[in-house]
Amino acid sequence: MIVTVTPNPALDLTYTVDALVPHGTHRVSAVAEEPGGKGLNVARVLHALGEPVLATGLLGGSTGDRVSELLADAAVPAAFLPIAAETRRTVSVADDADATGFWEPGPMVTGREWAAFVAQFEELLGDAEVVALCGSLPPGAPIDGYATLVRVAAKRGVPSVLDTSGEALRHGLAAGPDLVKPNVDELAALRTRGSELDAASLLDCGAKAVVVSRGPEGLLALTGDGAWRGVPSERLTGNPTGAGDACVAALARGLRDHTPWPELLADAVALSAAAVATPTAGAVDLATYRRLRPAVRVSAAREGSPC
Amino acid sequence: MIVTVTPNPALDLTYTVDALVPHGTHRVSAVAEEPGGKGLNVARVLHALGEPVLATGLLGGSTGDRVSELLADAAVPAAFLPIAAETRRTVSVADDADATGFWEPGPMVTGREWAAFVAQFEELLGDAEVVALCGSLPPGAPIDGYATLVRVAAKRGVPSVLDTSGEALRHGLAAGPDLVKPNVDELAALRTRGSELDAASLLDCGAKAVVVSRGPEGLLALTGDGAWRGVPSERLTGNPTGAGDACVAALARGLRDHTPWPELLADAVALSAAAVATPTAGAVDLATYRRLRPAVRVSAAREGSPC
Repeated sequence: MIVTVTPNPALDLTYTVDALVPHGTHRVSAVAEEPGGKGLNVARVLHALGEPVLATGLLGGSTGDRVSELLADAAVPAAFLPIAAETRRTVSVADDADATGFWEPGPMVTGREWAAFVAQFEELLGDAEVVALCGSLPPGAPIDGYATLVRVAAKRGVPSVLDTSGEALRHGLAAGPDLVKPNVDELAALRTRGSELDAASLLDCGAKAVVVSRGPEGLLALTGDGAWRGVPSERLTGNPTGAGDACVAALARGLRDHTPWPELLADAVALSAAAVATPTAGAVDLATYRRLRPAVRVSAAREGSPC
Repeated sequence: MIVTVTPNPALDLTYTVDALVPHGTHRVSAVAEEPGGKGLNVARVLHALGEPVLATGLLGGSTGDRVSELLADAAVPAAFLPIAAETRRTVSVADDADATGFWEPGPMVTGREWAAFVAQFEELLGDAEVVALCGSLPPGAPIDGYATLVRVAAKRGVPSVLDTSGEALRHGLAAGPDLVKPNVDELAALRTRGSELDAASLLDCGAKAVVVSRGPEGLLALTGDGAWRGVPSERLTGNPTGAGDACVAALARGLRDHTPWPELLADAVALSAAAVATPTAGAVDLATYRRLRPAVRVSAAREGSPC
C-alpha cells in the first residue's frame, strides 16, 4: 500500500461565471467541488490506476467533513486526523477567458495535534510500502515536520517521496528522503546563502534521488545509479495543474516496485502528460497514458548538468 | 416568540485581498464566515435586541452544518429542517476599492423535503407570536411556497411579515400576508401585465399592509389605518446590506406588540439606520439606534401617493 500524506488539504471550489467583472456581483452558474491538496491528488491518481492507497493528513471543521465526503464518494481510502480548526478552501472562478484564484490560508494546527498526527502516521506505516509526503505544511506545524515524517518512515524501512517547496523542502532534505520532486520554479526558489541550487546539490543536501519536473520538457532524474532525461513524444495542451501530482504517483509506485530508473522515468512522464489531458487535478486520462507510455524518450544525462 | 423563516440560507464568506486582479491568483489574508440569508439576519438583529426568536428554514450538507455552528456560536436559537442537497455559499472578495461578489445557486429541494418543512413550520407556530418569511425560495420549492406558509400561519392566528421579491412575492401576496416589505427596486420589478405597480396596489393584491423601504429616504407605510412616511433625522454612510432585514426585525416586533403605526415606523427607520452603521449584515449598532430613534420624523402621507 502507498500512503499519501497531505498536511494542508483543501476543499477546491470551481465557480463558472460569464465574465469576471471586478467589483461586480456574479451569479455562479455551476459549482464544482473537489478534494484538494497535492497528496489527495496523488492518492486519487493511484486509486484510478487500481493501486492500493491510503490518504492521510489533517482535516478540520465542516470544510474538512466535506473533503472526507468527497473522498468517500470517489472511494479513495482515507484516515485523516481530525483537528479543531477549519480546513481551508480554494475558490477558482472560471470565465470564458481564464481562471481567477483565491486561496484561503490553512488552519492553525496545535502542537498537540501535530504530535497526534505523527503518532497516527507511525501506526499507518505498518501497512505502508512507500509514503508520499506532499504539499505545504499548515500554519502551526513545525517547519521540520516533513523531516520528522521522513525519519519515522525510514526507521520502519519505508521509503519516502517528498514533494514540497521552500523551507519545508529545505528542512525535509536534511532527513534524507529517498526521492524529492521539485519543479523548476521550486528549485530556482531554493537558494542557499543567496546562490542558486541545481538539482545535483539536492543530493548533497541529503536526498537519495531527485526528479525535477520541467513542464512540457519532461523530467530530469539524478540518482545514485545515474542521471536520465525523460521527454514526452508529443506536446499536450490542457490543464497542467496536477501534472506534478501524477508524476509523484508514478514515482511512488515505481519506488514500491523497484522499477529500474529509465522505465520509471518513462512512466512518470506519460502519467504527467495524462494529467494534462484532463480538466481537473487529481485525474488522469488513462487512454492518453497508455498511448504515450511506449513513446517516451529516455536518455542518459550528465549528472552535473544544469536543469 | 418571533419565528424567522429562511428557505434559502447561505454561508457568507468574505475574503480580504490586496487588489483583485482578473485571471490572477490571490492569497486571501483574512476569511470571515457569517450565517447568511435575510431571515437569519432578521433573527440575529432580534436576538441582539434581546427579543425571543427562533430561526427556521432548510439547511443541507457540511455547508449547512457550518451555518448551524455559526448560529450556535452567536447563541441564536434555530430549528432547521435538514435537506440532502448542499446549502449555498456566497463569496465576497473585498479589496482596497470595493467588493466583488460570487453567489452560488441554492440547493435543489425535493417535494418531500418541502412538505416536511411545512409540517415542521406548522408545529413551530404553537409558540409563535409573529412569523417573518424572508428571502428567495430555493430551486425545487413551489413558487407559491410563501403563500402556503402565510395561510398555515393565518389558520393558527399568527400574523406574517413577508420580505421577498419577484414571483415568490407575487404568489405570496395572494395569501394575504399581514405585512409585505419590498424595497423600491423590488416594487419596480413587480409589474402586472407590463404596467408598474405602486405600493397601494399591493394592498389590492392581498397584503394587509405595505412598508416600502426607500434607502436613505426612509420608509413609506400603507395600512388599513392610514399611510405614513418615516425619514431618518440624519443621513448615515456605511453598509446598506442588511438595513432591510433590520427593518423587518422592527416590523415583526411591532406587529407582535400591536405598536401604533407611527411609532412602529419610527422604530423601523432607526433600526434600519443602525444596521447601516455596522460593517456586516445581521448586526445593528445599538448606540446609533438609541440616538436616532427619538429623532425620526414620521408624517401622514396620502394613501395613493406614489413611492
